[in-house]
Amino acid sequence: MTNRSILAAFAVAAAAVSLPAAAQFQKPEDAVKYRQSAMFVMANHFGRIGAMAQGRIPYDAAAALANAETVSTMSRLPFAGFVEGTASTDKGKAKANIWTDRAKFYAGAKKMQEEVAKLLAAARTNSLDNVKAAFGDVGKSCKACHDDFRNQ
Amino acid sequence: MTNRSILAAFAVAAAAVSLPAAAQFQKPEDAVKYRQSAMFVMANHFGRIGAMAQGRIPYDAAAALANAETVSTMSRLPFAGFVEGTASTDKGKAKANIWTDRAKFYAGAKKMQEEVAKLLAAARTNSLDNVKAAFGDVGKSCKACHDDFRNQ
Repeated sequence: MTNRSILAAFAVAAAAVSLPAAAQFQKPEDAVKYRQSAMFVMANHFGRIGAMAQGRIPYDAAAALANAETVSTMSRLPFAGFVEGTASTDKGKAKANIWTDRAKFYAGAKKMQEEVAKLLAAARTNSLDNVKAAFGDVGKSCKACHDDFRNQ
Repeated sequence: MTNRSILAAFAVAAAAVSLPAAAQFQKPEDAVKYRQSAMFVMANHFGRIGAMAQGRIPYDAAAALANAETVSTMSRLPFAGFVEGTASTDKGKAKANIWTDRAKFYAGAKKMQEEVAKLLAAARTNSLDNVKAAFGDVGKSCKACHDDFRNQ
């Protein structure tokens, strides 16, 4: 298979599990850079909520909500970039078992997206306690998937 | 000034011109990586619309809209990462005049955001002709700012 047909096949597979594959890529390196970029932006905005949840900066309900909205958007993006055949092109931390145990990988992604949806709902309540609880649950979902599929 | 106080001062300045500075950064390198990541994700989704506008892939109104929504979200993010003092830490293409001619830089950012808003509206009409026209206008706003503030 050519790289392009591999990418196309992956897009079909990703769509089948109801994960978005709206983004496609000219070359494998672009897919790697895309998923790393989306993860980095997501982590940055999630970290801003964490700073409030952990008391390092004052709780600002509007800022927490804006960050939660961005995290929610970003949470849907990275997975289109986990294109078959990009383990070897990845200068990052993706483990090869992402592609040998896709069902578990996608389940981890879905779990994170569900917890992020709860974080967004919590942010809309303007309650720091709610945000703290939901932040913790999102963090657990991040860690669970990273433990399984990301090299430390 | 410490890096942290420089970042804080920039955040205030950015807020004053009505650009979001919701994201803050532990160190200058994070600000650089953040803005580059946000730009890369934005460009990827914008490129997907471009592929339809230019006839390289079939027009899919729902996909065009989904991509336009992502571009719209992303269009608000990168500018918080253009933190004073990060020209020297940037391994990328940012020109130093970003920080010496901020008013023009922010005007360019605002113009892009306005054109992206029109692209999103165009995508909602489900008309390829509307999307084509708006795509071209967004592209011009990208190029204008890149010509002034990005090394080639």
